[in-house]
Order: sequence, then C-alpha cells, then structure tokens
Amino acid sequence: MIKSIAVKDARFPLAAGAGSDAIHQNPVYSYTVTCLYDDKGNCGTGLAFTLGAGNELVCAAAKFYAEKLVGKELAEVMATFGTWFKSMSDEQQFRWLGPHKGVVHLALASVTNACYDLWAKQQQVPLWKLLLELSPEQLVNTLDLSYLEEVLPRDEAIRLLTDMAVSRKERDGILLSGYPAYDTSAGWFNYADDQLEENCKRAVDKGFLALKLKVGAKNPETDIRRAHIVRNTVGNNIKVMVDANQQWNLPQAIAVSKKLADIRPYWIEEPTHPDDVLAHKILADAINPMKLALGEHVPNRVVFKNYLQTGCAGFIQVDAVRVGGVSEFLTVSLLCKKFGVPVVPHVGDMGQLHQHLVLFNHIGMGHEALFLEHIPHLRTHFEQPAIIADGFYKTPELPGSSCDLIADKNIAR
Amino acid sequence: MIKSIAVKDARFPLAAGAGSDAIHQNPVYSYTVTCLYDDKGNCGTGLAFTLGAGNELVCAAAKFYAEKLVGKELAEVMATFGTWFKSMSDEQQFRWLGPHKGVVHLALASVTNACYDLWAKQQQVPLWKLLLELSPEQLVNTLDLSYLEEVLPRDEAIRLLTDMAVSRKERDGILLSGYPAYDTSAGWFNYADDQLEENCKRAVDKGFLALKLKVGAKNPETDIRRAHIVRNTVGNNIKVMVDANQQWNLPQAIAVSKKLADIRPYWIEEPTHPDDVLAHKILADAINPMKLALGEHVPNRVVFKNYLQTGCAGFIQVDAVRVGGVSEFLTVSLLCKKFGVPVVPHVGDMGQLHQHLVLFNHIGMGHEALFLEHIPHLRTHFEQPAIIADGFYKTPELPGSSCDLIADKNIAR
Repeated sequence: MIKSIAVKDARFPLAAGAGSDAIHQNPVYSYTVTCLYDDKGNCGTGLAFTLGAGNELVCAAAKFYAEKLVGKELAEVMATFGTWFKSMSDEQQFRWLGPHKGVVHLALASVTNACYDLWAKQQQVPLWKLLLELSPEQLVNTLDLSYLEEVLPRDEAIRLLTDMAVSRKERDGILLSGYPAYDTSAGWFNYADDQLEENCKRAVDKGFLALKLKVGAKNPETDIRRAHIVRNTVGNNIKVMVDANQQWNLPQAIAVSKKLADIRPYWIEEPTHPDDVLAHKILADAINPMKLALGEHVPNRVVFKNYLQTGCAGFIQVDAVRVGGVSEFLTVSLLCKKFGVPVVPHVGDMGQLHQHLVLFNHIGMGHEALFLEHIPHLRTHFEQPAIIADGFYKTPELPGSSCDLIADKNIAR
Repeated sequence: MIKSIAVKDARFPLAAGAGSDAIHQNPVYSYTVTCLYDDKGNCGTGLAFTLGAGNELVCAAAKFYAEKLVGKELAEVMATFGTWFKSMSDEQQFRWLGPHKGVVHLALASVTNACYDLWAKQQQVPLWKLLLELSPEQLVNTLDLSYLEEVLPRDEAIRLLTDMAVSRKERDGILLSGYPAYDTSAGWFNYADDQLEENCKRAVDKGFLALKLKVGAKNPETDIRRAHIVRNTVGNNIKVMVDANQQWNLPQAIAVSKKLADIRPYWIEEPTHPDDVLAHKILADAINPMKLALGEHVPNRVVFKNYLQTGCAGFIQVDAVRVGGVSEFLTVSLLCKKFGVPVVPHVGDMGQLHQHLVLFNHIGMGHEALFLEHIPHLRTHFEQPAIIADGFYKTPELPGSSCDLIADKNIAR
C-alpha cells in the first residue's frame, strides 16, 4: 500500500557553457521528484525535467496527483494503469490547464514514473525486466490509447506486442553488449571552436560513434563553420546530428538545412516550432533525403500521432520526463512501431530512465537499437549513475528505474 | 510608469448544472487576475480563465511575468509589444514548461490583457476604440508573428489591415446596432429535458437567434434526443450549435455527427482532442457540408495556423483568455482573415473582453459580424457587466476592456 508521498524540487546549476543551445544560455537542469513510500519500506522515485524557473509549479501540480495515490495498493493501480492515467489527465478542473501538456502533464509524468519505479522495486527487478515480463495484455493495460482509435486500437497494440514476442531471443543479446550511446555534450552552443574540436576528439576517443552539435545561431554561417569543424574532426565514419532547438522559422529552416547538407547530418533536430506539424512536413519534403528528428517538446501521444501520420519524422525523440511518463512513452513507441519510425529518446533524465525503456523497446517491441543520447552533467547526483563504457550503456541490474537522487543541498522538499 | 503589480486568485462557484458539459460536472469559473498599477492612479486588469483547481499555479506564473513590467513606461512597452511578448514567451527557463501553452501561456495571457486594459484606460477610451485608432503598423507592432512567416509575413499583415481601413464606414454601424449574441446557458449538459426546453423558449423570447447545446453523452441517443428537443422547441429559424467538448474519438465523432445532421446544426464544436489537427481534417471531410467550430483549447497561433492550413475549421473560436491574450487573439484573427474563416470567440471572459475584440475584428479587420457567445453566470461579479438587449451586446463606452471585478470574498490576493 502507498503510505505517504513527497514531492521535491531538485535544481542543479551547470558549469559554464554546459547545456547551452540556441534558446537556453543558462539552463538549470531541474527535476520535479515524486517519492511514493509503500508500507514495505520501498520508495518509488519519479522524475519530470525542467530548466529551472517554474519547477516549483510542476512540484505543486505533482502533489495534486500523487496525493490521490495514498492508501491505494500499487499492484491494483498498475493492473489498469491506463485507466488511472486517463482519469488523472482528464481530471475535470485541472485538465483545463492543459489538456495533456505543459505544467500539469509534466507533473503527471513525475508521478507516473514514480509508480513504475516503485512497481519494479516491489518486484526487485530493474524496470526493463519488469516490462519484458508483462504479457502483451498487461502491458497494454498500463497505457491510455484514447484518441488513437483510428490508428492503434487496443487489439492491434496487443497483436503488435504478441507478434514481437516470438523473436525476442534474436534481440536480447543487447543485454550483454550494452545499448549504443551518442554524445550530446561535445557540441553545446556556447563552446568556442577549439573547445568544440577538443570535445569531438575526446568523444571519438571514448568510443562514441555519433555525436551532436547545437546550431540555430543568429548568423547561419556560424552554424556552417562549426558543423564543418565537427565533420573535419571526427571524419566520415562518425554520425553527426545537428540540433536547432526550434530557433528557425520555416523559410530559415529550409535554407540553413540545405547549407548543412555538405556535412551529411544524420538528422536535423527540432528545426522549428514543436507544435508546427505542417511546417515539419513541408521542410521534410524540401530537404529529402535528409531526415528530421523531433519530439523533445512534443507533449503527448496525440501530437505524435499527427507527426507520424504526415510522415515527416525520420526519428521520434519522445522523452518520458516530458510526455506523461513511462506509460505515454510506451504508447508513443508503439505508435512509432506501427508507423515504422525509430525511437531515439531525448534524455531529460540524463538517460537514467531511458536506458531501461530503450532495452524494452528493442527486445519487447522490436524497435531497432539505434543509440541513446548521453548527457553526463548530473551523473554525480544519481545514486546509480548510468555506466557508459566504450560508447555503450551497460545494462542496469539493480531494482527500479535508476532515478534515485543522492540527497543534497540542491534538493528542496 | 508601472509602479506596482498584484495577481489575484478569483474563483466563483456556479449554481447546480450551470457550466456543466461532457467533461466538466462541477466547474468553478475562475480567473487569474493581473493588476498593473501606474503612477497616475490607473489600474489595468487582465484575466486568464481556468475551471478552478490549479488557478493558483497560473497566478504564480503570472506574477513571474508581471514583475518584469515594474518600472517600465507602458506606452513604450505597447509601442513594440510584439517584441516584449516574444521575449516573455521565449523566456529561456520558463518556456520549457510550455512552450506557448498550458499554465505559463495562460499566465502570459493574464498579464498581456492587463497591459491592453491599462493602455486603454490611460487614453480614456474603450479598448475597441483604442484598437481602431492604431495605425496598421502600430497594431502589427503589438503582435508576435514569428513562426507564421510562410503564411503571414509582417508586410502582408499590414497590407491586410490597410486594405480594410478604406471600407470601415460600411461596417461601423455595428457600434449603434450592437453585436449579435448567442446563448450558451440554455443547453448545459446536466440540465434535464424539461429545463432544457424551458431554457430554449426563454432564449428565443429574449431575442437570441442562436443557441448552443452540450452533447458528448456516453450514450449518443441522449445527444440525439436532446438535440431534437432543442430543434423542435426553437423551430427552423434559430441557429443551433452542438458542442461535444472533446468527448468523442474520431470514429465516434464521425458516427454521432452524422446522426445529428437531422437537426441541421450550424456547427459541431470541439468534437475531439484539441491537438488532433489531422483527425479534425478527416472528420470535416466526412461530414461535409456540416461544419466544425474549434479553438477553445487551442493554445497558440502556431496550432491555429495548422488548423487553418488543413481547411478543416468552419469557425475559429480563439479565446483571448486562453491564447496569449489580446495580442495573440488579434494575430489569430489576422490569420483567419487571410484564410477566409470567421472568428467566433469562446468566451472564458464571459464576453467582457471579447465584446471589444469582435467590434475591432469586424470594423478594423473586415471579419463578418456573426455573433458572440454569451454566458451570464458571472455578470454580478463584474464592475461593468456586458449589457445584452434583445439578443445584442450593447457597445461598451467606458475606458478599458470591461474586465474589472468587484472586490469580494471570491477573490484572494
């Protein structure tokens, strides 16, 4: 039984330049941390990610949802979690503040993630394992598939998982090899050219086979120059992704993307406004065969459905600490499977939670094991920081979802 | 100069059944009230609307924005308000909580609306008059047209207003006749059949030529029965709109809408999820020539642009207390003008603010003067409640935007 709850406001200032992009000069990586305490001494920890200011609003909203769990048996909640999730996200007064987006949805993500973490801890297994042990019906029962009926009815979702179950053995070698990682911390926006070059060399030396560069400068020539530095430094065998963090309007996105074609970007990420489904479609057609990656700021499964329906997304970057937690992450992953688009999560959780989710997506859902973003800046703050060796995430073995933070001065109750 | 600010949490419980729809059984009509005090003794009042729980979150976020105005000359802010609006909505940490949606965007609406109210009060004119007295350039300077470049570049926005200026005289008769109103309070979801019939008769007696029925019942036959009661009661010369408040998924929306064709609805409002641009497009095609009305929950100009680009919207119900205030309302109205779609606002403000905006939209922008929603439940709480006579909004003549609330027990600082 869930005995009590706590919601904590955790904020971690970063070193100069770290985390900077075309919009964010001084981000403060922050978490709304939901803690669910059961009567067996377990604590489930769930995160939602913000960039500092306003994290207290998400905390207040998370408390609103978490308090509704007190006194409930977690196993019963999880048996029909999709129903609970829908009832929370449609709470009749609170939903006006979204619906299914912004502060209230981030808050629901934090509480949802705490539920999955506690569920895995109660069963003494890592989250990826718990998810793999669920039957297709049990897994789909944790999802809210409403508003997806015309593309992913419940029976199709179950069939999709059932079909993939037979070939799991072909894919579970990844547990031993580890999941490939890519490096985002090489090319932050504010890093000078020499530091950028240095970082790229170090990333390659560390074994990364892919890395990311922040673009979206006021002067596009800056983007082009930096992109060439990266390509020249890493050579032709390393994948280079560029990320504009929504800084371009559509005409700019078309123009600058075409100029970036020379460095053969593996993808162009968040070129323009995250709500602008049709602009992404026009852009994707205009720069084909270059591909778009998007989803870091997409709030829910309905918007992802629209992106997938247009066919504009080469890669979907759904983030379980932005959408409604693990539950909606899995829903979006199923949608992507249906539409044949790879899932490469944005990692507001620094990869802690997502290392579990991509293992399930690959083994249980049959998604390609492409690679998972790696951002190292908060690793000293986690109880069990993700371990990256030779460019691969090592499979986490401890119970839960690896999201427990070390209690320190950065965390306010 | 703006000397000080206050943000107040105003909540007004409603009588039984009032305000009920397919989602909301017990809404508490609530406002985030931003007050901007200048050094001349004026107070600008701006509203954002919520349904109760969480209004305090919007208040906290509004304070964040409003405090940035202290010490500034309002006239200078308004001279380039579009730039200020963009800088606030892109505030580098806070924007993560949206961007441009949810709690933070509602908060920006409240602050924005206070700016326009104070601007009009400082010039001692009603808001509609202030807007009409701005030159096309001045008006466009109050707007943020970013992410609209491919459909509404700045020069086209100015030209559109300039073109309409010459024919204003043909349209300003509306100031004398008043703006037509339609009645939403006849057909709330929880009203019993006999009360519904009674309300419809009274609405017609009062001079309304259009009224709305809430649908989206678990059993569609309930919707059909109630819709026939309304049509039979009001006869064929009254427009009847039905509003499903997002309760249907796409297959349901298609099925029930077709069954409602018999009562010849003037529009079908919010049939499904407000983020689902493509579902609305499929639905609109399937039920043609019936038309969709949407926008009550659409958060910003970018999503409206997508809706307009697909051609699925017969009517756009942008609400200035949901999108980023008067500024973004006008931006969306310009977009609608460009795409040839009528603007019929949802009135979270109970029509207080929108009575000014539709006058400007008609006279200054050349939009058809269709009708404006009327909801009477909060009229005793406003200093200058909108006056409806024989089904028409009388033109407000006092300075400002008619949003001042009477200080009472429902308003917490």
